[in-house]
Amino acid sequence: MAKDITGRSENYSQWYNDIVVKADLAEQSPVRGCMVIKPYGYAIWEKMQGILDGMFKRTGVKNAYFPLLIPKSFFSREAEHVEGFAKECAVVTHHRLMSDPDGPGVVVDPSARLEEELIVRPTSETIIWSTYKNWIHSWRDLPILCNQWCNVMRWEMRTRLFLRTAEFLWQEGHTAHATAQEAQDEAMRMVQVYAEFARKYMSMPVVVGHKSPNERFAGALDTLCIEALMQDGKALQAGTSHFLGQNFAKSFDVQYADKEGNLQYVWASSWGVSTRLMGALVMAHGDDNGLVLPPALAPIQVVMVPIYKTDDEHGAVLSEMHALKKSLEDAGHSVEIDDRDTLRPGFKFAEWELKGVPVRIAMGPRDLENGTAEVHRRDTLEKESVPVERLAGRVADMLDDIQKNIYAKALKFRDENIVKADTWDEFKELIEKGGFIQAHWDGTAETEVKIQEETKATIRCIPIDSAVCEEEGKCIYTGKPSHRRVLFARSY
Amino acid sequence: MAKDITGRSENYSQWYNDIVVKADLAEQSPVRGCMVIKPYGYAIWEKMQGILDGMFKRTGVKNAYFPLLIPKSFFSREAEHVEGFAKECAVVTHHRLMSDPDGPGVVVDPSARLEEELIVRPTSETIIWSTYKNWIHSWRDLPILCNQWCNVMRWEMRTRLFLRTAEFLWQEGHTAHATAQEAQDEAMRMVQVYAEFARKYMSMPVVVGHKSPNERFAGALDTLCIEALMQDGKALQAGTSHFLGQNFAKSFDVQYADKEGNLQYVWASSWGVSTRLMGALVMAHGDDNGLVLPPALAPIQVVMVPIYKTDDEHGAVLSEMHALKKSLEDAGHSVEIDDRDTLRPGFKFAEWELKGVPVRIAMGPRDLENGTAEVHRRDTLEKESVPVERLAGRVADMLDDIQKNIYAKALKFRDENIVKADTWDEFKELIEKGGFIQAHWDGTAETEVKIQEETKATIRCIPIDSAVCEEEGKCIYTGKPSHRRVLFARSY
Repeated sequence: MAKDITGRSENYSQWYNDIVVKADLAEQSPVRGCMVIKPYGYAIWEKMQGILDGMFKRTGVKNAYFPLLIPKSFFSREAEHVEGFAKECAVVTHHRLMSDPDGPGVVVDPSARLEEELIVRPTSETIIWSTYKNWIHSWRDLPILCNQWCNVMRWEMRTRLFLRTAEFLWQEGHTAHATAQEAQDEAMRMVQVYAEFARKYMSMPVVVGHKSPNERFAGALDTLCIEALMQDGKALQAGTSHFLGQNFAKSFDVQYADKEGNLQYVWASSWGVSTRLMGALVMAHGDDNGLVLPPALAPIQVVMVPIYKTDDEHGAVLSEMHALKKSLEDAGHSVEIDDRDTLRPGFKFAEWELKGVPVRIAMGPRDLENGTAEVHRRDTLEKESVPVERLAGRVADMLDDIQKNIYAKALKFRDENIVKADTWDEFKELIEKGGFIQAHWDGTAETEVKIQEETKATIRCIPIDSAVCEEEGKCIYTGKPSHRRVLFARSY
Repeated sequence: MAKDITGRSENYSQWYNDIVVKADLAEQSPVRGCMVIKPYGYAIWEKMQGILDGMFKRTGVKNAYFPLLIPKSFFSREAEHVEGFAKECAVVTHHRLMSDPDGPGVVVDPSARLEEELIVRPTSETIIWSTYKNWIHSWRDLPILCNQWCNVMRWEMRTRLFLRTAEFLWQEGHTAHATAQEAQDEAMRMVQVYAEFARKYMSMPVVVGHKSPNERFAGALDTLCIEALMQDGKALQAGTSHFLGQNFAKSFDVQYADKEGNLQYVWASSWGVSTRLMGALVMAHGDDNGLVLPPALAPIQVVMVPIYKTDDEHGAVLSEMHALKKSLEDAGHSVEIDDRDTLRPGFKFAEWELKGVPVRIAMGPRDLENGTAEVHRRDTLEKESVPVERLAGRVADMLDDIQKNIYAKALKFRDENIVKADTWDEFKELIEKGGFIQAHWDGTAETEVKIQEETKATIRCIPIDSAVCEEEGKCIYTGKPSHRRVLFARSY
């Protein structure tokens, strides 16, 4: 186990925090609940952004930018939305500070009170739909497919780095359509983009499904989500996509003239993923030695550590390493040589393991003589000696293999931890073990709430894969008839 | 002149606003002083970001993210900084809204008042240096070269889209060094990055220089800047880079142990460019037909407009266009076919001219017969008929040529509008004509202020190109001795 990292079995929550902080991903800031994303963590987020952004754009989405601050009155327009969002948020009431008349420092200038308070956006449906009103007049103006990458704030009481912070970074897509079907298709298209991103790039298996009405986004008619299972058996919602119906169009009076010239309210979707994905990535693959990064998202895919005693050895090894680095970079890999001369190799090995770098190459005078290098893979911690002339090919294969292997490992864990419960006693017993439970539910909010009160489990989703879940049965809690199993779990 | 666009000579300011709004770059939002950046405008900003980000990274800079909200007390730590920044800003005082007890809607919950107010960042030196305190202990931790792309707010009274808005997007680099020289070198390196970006990608000539002490960033020992000349003869500051000395290190107690183990305060630089560059781009090249984009920053480099009467003609032209589009895309150009069937070609031509697309290709049945296409370039508005088999090569040359030509044109204009003034009367006469004036100044803040009061001209910079400006002379205002000319202008 790496120095200073709590073991997962000892305290999973502390393990998570240790990795986030010690692998230099993020740290608490002096501002309550707000984090600093450190360069190494931000480089992973940039990789995620780059890939997702390309995936969005290939579906026709364009980026734009809308204001950070939203007039308070906008939140009252959509009745459910205000209940869900406008309560715990940062409120701007003044626009000026002044020198403190009673001493050094500054105080709020009481004469600079705003006529209407402004809210730091917790999500942007309201400001965007107030803007869309000016953009949409006729059916020719539709669809509008906009996304923005930005920061948002929700005044969370209990915060955890990446998983739940007052300020976080995200993308929010907001689309406008002529028909309900198009908006529903868009919401489904984007949740599938999220699922593909999670599986292919994060190597993280996810279940795609609908939220129960209770768990829907405030103002949505349907919320789709991707749900992943973490190693402690808790579920994590990793992305959501909403069919908003005409709720926001009606609240902001956004209508279009159809081909017959009749005015119709516009249909909407919105969808988002956030820096929460960083937390999911840590928990999906990390081990007691630290982070394990999928090669597709690793800022450094290969790290090289020279082993030497004398200056001559140092020079000879470094020279060979630079040649190897060049050939690996030419093959499209990101490579770093760790030539810090104040640290011992063993210390460096542990540090790069902690940081989850997929492949490590060590090389010393004996390797030089033999024409080999020692190649170590982060996921299995296995080492092998590879002839230098075959190194580039071996590293490429190994990176591919790591990407697939950590997915397979996470999938195996997930599949071993999806179980069926057919009675209430069984359910209560299984939920203590963690994992997803497939169980029948009578479809009512009352039952859902009672199950949560008694077990802390919520309906994570109603999977869209009907082959898996559609069957007749009886609600585990009330015994009333049910037509499909839904997925329960305790969650982040 | 394009429909609905005010001519430059008629009203330059209105011309600017017309282009920004009608070319779909940005618009006012319902929030005072805050803009919506529309997809077409944002696509240009994304191109700027991508290029600048690569340039920063090649110098060793890494991206990170620091909190949006800054505790009020942080602004009092650096005495000059608070004077410069903490006054006109958005102040968060509460963290909750509640349902209005007297009716529908929401009101601020008086019980949710923050113990200490938080300021929406106008710039991040304070929060970043409070963080660097934890990152820096020894000389081994230096240098730190961080940048963040983010939004900032300054409560401006008079706002103009892109040029001066309450909220704007920018990047801010913040570096920490062991020596003054390294920090000064970094500030100089980054202002040169800005200058290269402006010249090479924006096709915009700039003068690099130092600000006079009066115009320095609040808390800086030296501010470097790039200054560009707009078509109305006013200067525009397009980027700044500051040598901050040890001011922030002392305010936030950031010290490092040097190799001898002695504690030393850290030296700092910071540097930034913002969405203001979008305004510079519009004003540097735009004409009475609209925007003129340099190909390097154009989201669409080539637009194709089919000309046809019958469905058969339409099909034949489109099929040829798709083949041409593919060959141009394979050559690395971004191409769009405007196949909207409800608009006439003339309307489309005007619209793409307004949007500044560098090259337009029109093709009709006669072109098909002749094996040619009509190619139009936005900068000169010239048309030529090009054989289809030579089209890809011709378009590539033309894009190169446009990039160079608009730079040459802007440079010619700038050079024609840099003049020398040797007497006060001459100065007062020349400043009315606009442009940069090279004049001697006695080096005092009093004189600078008086010149500004009498003429509205400020010292834009003291150019670093000593060959141009170093000479003995007498201050145009006081007659006192001076060793170099400085650059005066009225400015944005």
